Amino acid sequence: MAEQALPRFRIAVVGSGAIGGYYGAKLAHAGADVHFLMRSDLLEVRRSGIRIEGRGENIHVADVNCYASAGDIGPCDIVLIAVKTTSNGDLPHLIPPLLHSRTILLTLQNGLGNEEYLAKNFGAERVLGGLCFVCLNRVSPKLIEHYDHGRVAIGEFSGPPRERTHQITEMFKRSGVNCRVVEDLSLERWRKLVWNIPFNGLSVAAGGIDTEAMLADEDLRELLRSLMDEVIAAANQCGHALPASEGVHQIERTESMGQYKPSTLIDFERGKPLEIEAIWGEPLRRAAAAGAKTPQLELLYAILKSLNQKLLRSAAARERAVVAVPA
Amino acid sequence: MAEQALPRFRIAVVGSGAIGGYYGAKLAHAGADVHFLMRSDLLEVRRSGIRIEGRGENIHVADVNCYASAGDIGPCDIVLIAVKTTSNGDLPHLIPPLLHSRTILLTLQNGLGNEEYLAKNFGAERVLGGLCFVCLNRVSPKLIEHYDHGRVAIGEFSGPPRERTHQITEMFKRSGVNCRVVEDLSLERWRKLVWNIPFNGLSVAAGGIDTEAMLADEDLRELLRSLMDEVIAAANQCGHALPASEGVHQIERTESMGQYKPSTLIDFERGKPLEIEAIWGEPLRRAAAAGAKTPQLELLYAILKSLNQKLLRSAAARERAVVAVPA
Repeated sequence: MAEQALPRFRIAVVGSGAIGGYYGAKLAHAGADVHFLMRSDLLEVRRSGIRIEGRGENIHVADVNCYASAGDIGPCDIVLIAVKTTSNGDLPHLIPPLLHSRTILLTLQNGLGNEEYLAKNFGAERVLGGLCFVCLNRVSPKLIEHYDHGRVAIGEFSGPPRERTHQITEMFKRSGVNCRVVEDLSLERWRKLVWNIPFNGLSVAAGGIDTEAMLADEDLRELLRSLMDEVIAAANQCGHALPASEGVHQIERTESMGQYKPSTLIDFERGKPLEIEAIWGEPLRRAAAAGAKTPQLELLYAILKSLNQKLLRSAAARERAVVAVPA
Repeated sequence: MAEQALPRFRIAVVGSGAIGGYYGAKLAHAGADVHFLMRSDLLEVRRSGIRIEGRGENIHVADVNCYASAGDIGPCDIVLIAVKTTSNGDLPHLIPPLLHSRTILLTLQNGLGNEEYLAKNFGAERVLGGLCFVCLNRVSPKLIEHYDHGRVAIGEFSGPPRERTHQITEMFKRSGVNCRVVEDLSLERWRKLVWNIPFNGLSVAAGGIDTEAMLADEDLRELLRSLMDEVIAAANQCGHALPASEGVHQIERTESMGQYKPSTLIDFERGKPLEIEAIWGEPLRRAAAAGAKTPQLELLYAILKSLNQKLLRSAAARERAVVAVPA
């Protein structure tokens, strides 16, 4: 595959946060034809570009093609979707101007339900999913810090990998991203949830603590394990053959990550909406539909939903307060 | 019983917070011989007395017998123990000056383990327990607001009720407190935990919300119920015959309480240590020892313990900051 000539894809990035900004900039830096849809950060990125720092990387994309509307970008071959899942409701009006008849929609979002949502709105044929195993922090619109990992796993939403799956994977690899094709995207989504459900959830519910602090607390460590076991059992019940050993492996791998803050904790600290439904709600509903028992996931979901509602009320109150300040 | 002459008990109150202050003042106002052990509030209460307001009550005890040390009080017939369970470690040096050979220790504290702790330190023979079903808020050292309920259930730690159990109950009744004798104190402690474990726990873990807000949230309401079911099953497994219907009844009774803040939430908001071990830790350990499965209680316990540790760290940091201010 490495020797093969790749089509020159025209690529749009919708959602230029840490994930969209990082992978979009990696592709652009390697010479791909990348077009970023941006809102508030447009002028700053036009002026300063995007820089990636950390883990031995120091990349600067000075000339970023960025646009205020999807109509200005026009039809593309691949759309990387990296908005927070809480903004999925914006996609039905953001995506259409980017589509031609064979445009691929590759969602790099967290959790379950995103491929289904895109399939429902734009047709299942177009949809691929990518799982990102990466520790990033978008410090400002022009600077993304890269702390750890970085690999991406790409699969088809409906069915086994095709030629396009391999081509997109190859494109990522040529831009310096550790990328592989997965045979079974749903299985891999559940495997990732084995981490996200306990670590993202408890990092917020237990009072704003990082992975190292969680693992150092004996009771929380035990809970991380028992939540992982619940998720693995639910995945199995849903027909995805995750091994029972998955939890141990993931705990081990997390121990090398240091004081890592899961994305949900970063959202929480910034007062941004949490990805409650994609990471906890949808897996819970699928587990329940398959008849799996998930008492701890249920409790965690209800607590996080309540914390999120409080967060949104505070954010709304802050916004009202700002509006009320005399000009 | 109502016609019987009661001995004139000499009573000490150790822990003059909301519970100790309320029941102590009720007894004193009815003419009982009550002596309060106080620390920081001593001078204010000496000057202003204790007032109870609310629920049609407006009681003022102008002359409160209060003391800075247990030695100044000396031996009593009954010691009402109402310190937070997190301060139980202080009791071995506070209690001895209050004891004569037949002094009764009546703990009005929350959760499990308090009678056992007193029995271990001062002998099981002395120990009685009282369960307080009351909504209070100690607004200041001199003012306790009474929102709802108020009844007390009193039982022996070891064995069935005796004459003294009935006498103490009668004493409370004569001071206007709805009080009754319970045959099986442990059963009643578990019955109260059916409420405290879910309501106190989720009020803090779900972001600082009152009983009305919890019951209005469909997911939290379901969780309150499933946590109650876990506690009932654990109680049964520990040999205490609580009926399965206990949860429904308690939810119904809570609905009439309005926007009530459980004591743990009040502690949390004030940055005071939470009664983690008495309300969650000890029941969890007993359930585990009896072979009961309590996955949601485990999760709630670990989350609350982590939140409490954070709270204590912040409190310690505030204290250091205050100490560091130049005089």
